[in-house]
Amino acid sequence: MSQSDEVMFERIALIGVGLIGSSISHAARRANLASDIVGSSATPATREKAEALGLVSKAFERAADAVKDADLVVLCTPVGVLGKVAEEIGPHLKPGTIVTDVGSVKAAVVRDVAPHMPEGVHFIPGHPIAGTEQSGPEAGFAELFDGRWCILTPDAVTDRMALAKLETFWQRLGSKVELMSPEHHDLVLAITSHVPHLIAFNIVNTAAHLARVTDTEVIKFSAGGFRDFTRIAASDPVMWRDVFLNNKEAVLEMLGRFSEDLTALQRAIRYGDGETLERLFAEARSIRRGIIQAGQDTATPDFGRRPSGSGTQS
Amino acid sequence: MSQSDEVMFERIALIGVGLIGSSISHAARRANLASDIVGSSATPATREKAEALGLVSKAFERAADAVKDADLVVLCTPVGVLGKVAEEIGPHLKPGTIVTDVGSVKAAVVRDVAPHMPEGVHFIPGHPIAGTEQSGPEAGFAELFDGRWCILTPDAVTDRMALAKLETFWQRLGSKVELMSPEHHDLVLAITSHVPHLIAFNIVNTAAHLARVTDTEVIKFSAGGFRDFTRIAASDPVMWRDVFLNNKEAVLEMLGRFSEDLTALQRAIRYGDGETLERLFAEARSIRRGIIQAGQDTATPDFGRRPSGSGTQS
Repeated sequence: MSQSDEVMFERIALIGVGLIGSSISHAARRANLASDIVGSSATPATREKAEALGLVSKAFERAADAVKDADLVVLCTPVGVLGKVAEEIGPHLKPGTIVTDVGSVKAAVVRDVAPHMPEGVHFIPGHPIAGTEQSGPEAGFAELFDGRWCILTPDAVTDRMALAKLETFWQRLGSKVELMSPEHHDLVLAITSHVPHLIAFNIVNTAAHLARVTDTEVIKFSAGGFRDFTRIAASDPVMWRDVFLNNKEAVLEMLGRFSEDLTALQRAIRYGDGETLERLFAEARSIRRGIIQAGQDTATPDFGRRPSGSGTQS
Repeated sequence: MSQSDEVMFERIALIGVGLIGSSISHAARRANLASDIVGSSATPATREKAEALGLVSKAFERAADAVKDADLVVLCTPVGVLGKVAEEIGPHLKPGTIVTDVGSVKAAVVRDVAPHMPEGVHFIPGHPIAGTEQSGPEAGFAELFDGRWCILTPDAVTDRMALAKLETFWQRLGSKVELMSPEHHDLVLAITSHVPHLIAFNIVNTAAHLARVTDTEVIKFSAGGFRDFTRIAASDPVMWRDVFLNNKEAVLEMLGRFSEDLTALQRAIRYGDGETLERLFAEARSIRRGIIQAGQDTATPDFGRRPSGSGTQS
């Protein structure tokens, strides 16, 4: 058996079995990374589904029960409850266990989780930059992480062997791995993910409150651009609430810059300054080219996905 | 030959052969709507490509030459030059000809074009809500309008027969047709298309000017949401400049509302008001459901389109 086929963990415990937890299960089974995968969820329906779908051999009600004998614990709950979860599982973790998470913010997770980790347990925060607007245990699939980045935020005292093992784990789930500090992660994600989501949520709600344009019209003519915003605004409300409450500083800084820049565009429109508008739009277009070249998207034209059953997807 | 197979026009003239003009050519040929299609472009390279691709039997330099003997003229240039184009072609239009356009604003087009239309010519403004972020004559394809809405904005004196014929034309190109006033069109599109594009252009530029986050990082981690914004920010800068200069009032009104709403979210983040955040996010999610039910998008998870060659597209 070559190293790349080796089982890496005897027992993985997934604390929370939503979109990310269930996708980790699928991808870990695909790559044969674990002898056993167990999970926990406070919601009975989620536990039933997770077992019925074979995502976990056993779904526990309490996280403390799921982590017993696990050598990898992945925290997949909304970040707002991670402190409570860490406090609960801390006394039940065995020495040598790697504990990681998949939260969209990192400094707050370090603040909330690290104090509860016992001596000998390796806590290494993580964040796979992958997702869909779906949630729940049925939403996961093995390919979610393929070719996507996973950011890990070790610190100066992180055990090098444990870090190398966690890196390999994510690579075998399909990801590329990048290391950075929790604070830098939070700044990068504020602009690449958190503020875009906030803006998407916001414009969808602005549209909903117009008296002179009906909801039906907004929906009918959404192919003009609005639809792309609703897609990302469909993400889980609780997860996103916790993201914004836990990355307040970086998000407020980025929002401040965004608003200043938007005011400049608004002013150019008001005073008919076409030169400024064209220049700023052309700059944005060139950044798009960079993303295509970096392989994070395709140049294939997007002409709106077809309603199900009416043809192939673009 | 059944009515739905009939040639509708002896000669269609496409003034401008970019994404929309070339797609009209493809779709009109697919449905056998014209005996002949000619076009015009001020750009020699565009004329060469349009002829080489067979989009037009002849590409003229001057719009006035292209419209001679045409019984349907479709203006497909950026809206900023439509007044000039109308002035140029006006004297060369034959009575009974239908003139329409595909511009993203409608009141300004009526203002600029209508005064140049001679007696007996039927000017009926139009706007197909379809597009990709690509531009140029190679970007078009026959399926662009399939299942999408096309808005026509006739007025009280519009000839009913000409209107019915233009409606049939768009339906045979694949579209569904909706009628409304130019002013209402501009309000609806301000929120469903113009403001979303402005915001997309803006956040891409905000990201580009950050000192503490590198462009490489923005691009690398764009799958977190930012990528969806860059896609629509890749659209043609000149076309969009003209849209904003020509739909100033409605765009400024919508931007004002958007900014007020964003300030409320920003305040909720600053003061840790999780209840408000969760409520507003949940409202946005329910609007997304409406769009899926209306068939304007699919519920299939979007897990990021794959770089070309690495698998199927989602």
